[in-house]
Amino acid sequence: MEIRNTICKLFNIKYPIIQAGMVWCSGWKLASAVSNAGGLGIIGAGSMYPEVLQMHIRKCRVATEKPFGVNIPLLYPNIQEIIDVVIEEDVKIVFSSAGNPATWTGILKETGITVVHVIANTKFALKAQEAGVDAIVAEGFEAGGHNGREETTTMCLIPIVKAAVNIPIIAAGGIASGKSMLAAFALGADAVQIGSAFAVAEESSAHPAFKNKIISSAEGDTKLAMKKLVPVRLLKNEFADAVAQAEAEGADRTQLIALLGKARAKLGMFEGDLENGELEIGQVSAMLQEIKPAKQILEEIWQDYRTGLKRFRDLHDETK
Amino acid sequence: MEIRNTICKLFNIKYPIIQAGMVWCSGWKLASAVSNAGGLGIIGAGSMYPEVLQMHIRKCRVATEKPFGVNIPLLYPNIQEIIDVVIEEDVKIVFSSAGNPATWTGILKETGITVVHVIANTKFALKAQEAGVDAIVAEGFEAGGHNGREETTTMCLIPIVKAAVNIPIIAAGGIASGKSMLAAFALGADAVQIGSAFAVAEESSAHPAFKNKIISSAEGDTKLAMKKLVPVRLLKNEFADAVAQAEAEGADRTQLIALLGKARAKLGMFEGDLENGELEIGQVSAMLQEIKPAKQILEEIWQDYRTGLKRFRDLHDETK
Repeated sequence: MEIRNTICKLFNIKYPIIQAGMVWCSGWKLASAVSNAGGLGIIGAGSMYPEVLQMHIRKCRVATEKPFGVNIPLLYPNIQEIIDVVIEEDVKIVFSSAGNPATWTGILKETGITVVHVIANTKFALKAQEAGVDAIVAEGFEAGGHNGREETTTMCLIPIVKAAVNIPIIAAGGIASGKSMLAAFALGADAVQIGSAFAVAEESSAHPAFKNKIISSAEGDTKLAMKKLVPVRLLKNEFADAVAQAEAEGADRTQLIALLGKARAKLGMFEGDLENGELEIGQVSAMLQEIKPAKQILEEIWQDYRTGLKRFRDLHDETK
Repeated sequence: MEIRNTICKLFNIKYPIIQAGMVWCSGWKLASAVSNAGGLGIIGAGSMYPEVLQMHIRKCRVATEKPFGVNIPLLYPNIQEIIDVVIEEDVKIVFSSAGNPATWTGILKETGITVVHVIANTKFALKAQEAGVDAIVAEGFEAGGHNGREETTTMCLIPIVKAAVNIPIIAAGGIASGKSMLAAFALGADAVQIGSAFAVAEESSAHPAFKNKIISSAEGDTKLAMKKLVPVRLLKNEFADAVAQAEAEGADRTQLIALLGKARAKLGMFEGDLENGELEIGQVSAMLQEIKPAKQILEEIWQDYRTGLKRFRDLHDETK
């Protein structure tokens, strides 16, 4: 059971399923596990110093012979050093996000790297296409972590972006099952990028307490916060409540920056402080019930997708 | 080409497509046009005095022999009178929204009315099921008009609610094409409820200036506002900007109620004041390009759905 779609060909992978690069979750262990299972694993450079990223790339290469990528938030302070590491270490696939794709795409493409840029609105989808990226990730409002200001949901974003660009689209936000993967394909996506479901994988470097909080969370337990800075979706806790309170009272950027402080995401996601940390996760956390190996997560999604596809084939034939 | 799904059987309609009851848009003209075309048309009682509703029901019955329904926001001030009209006029289908389904479902069901309740979270999905409704509309964050506080998107809400209840689910929010209808079915919905796309139908009683603003709007042009009162999705304009400004500065409920004033929705949607009015519409407004007859809207969605279904049948067979 193999599918040869555009994105599978672009990355030379078996399944059109990409594991999102996530701060404090997706190091070499998770990325290599996903790649070994037939998806595309991605090392999230956003929480790594350049030398730490270098170590993760090297360990990933030892752990898998399959293709893998690196996600680089372009607003990263040492961005030049991170780009240098990626080029020196001969990384073949880069997913860039949170910044202007015009700045780095050309440089990466010149060295032969396949480049994908993450967008949350049509304007940046067009900018990314113009910059020459090979594909885009279109990420909806329901996604965990940093998010778009327009709040466009996956259901609306995918068809709107599809109508605007002519490069392949990887849907992200709200996707954690084969059913939602099939929905993304119905909307016009060529592949899916999955974050939250892999954040709770056994191989994720997230703190066990954070993983347990994710799998015990319910619908309505996440919130888009910090809209006056960079919007971020996180689990509600003492920190998120304090932010919500400050925002309701009209806190400005300076006050929010002070409230955020430093290393909040590390504190919550990596060190397991569930009340004072920033716990970035998507709305689909409500659907996650179990900590499982990445391979099992990927294969269950694929089987669920195939079941849905078969149901649709039967529905088509029934209603001719 | 006919489908005999659960919702089609429940309402005795041809297509599992329901036109949302919408204030200032869906009177007898729109409802009867949708019902005549094979969907379920719904008269939106939310903007009607009881005697106006009575007139619309009577005219709708003259205009169509097919089933149609009435949408009743349960927080309506003269709710008892509205319920009386619906029962006296022998309406067969009621969609209730914005309130507790426990209060009225039993009374409506006793008179033989099929009852559907609109929910935006799991808690109310379970309450509605317990109250004995025949189906629920699960409406995501991207939907126009009044909306849930949890901000759960259609992509996440449908599978989560599907796992919680055992009654049929009608998906709403972000659906304006056959592609998004197919996506909703992939997620587990039995039918779709479509608002925005029918708000711009020729038969919609919305002001032509409002319809033109909808079809010329782009991605990012709507916003969820008034979260401290009842959250509502609307097009950005002078009024919406004033609300956003007040909210950013920490305006409380009293200040927002004063800013809202009276009859803002009527002013914008029915009278065509595009800057001072409240223009309720969904994120899919960005996908709407044209004012068309309801029949054409419905048939294009159905054909697009069938095309998607065929594409999936081929994809299934190719990748066996």
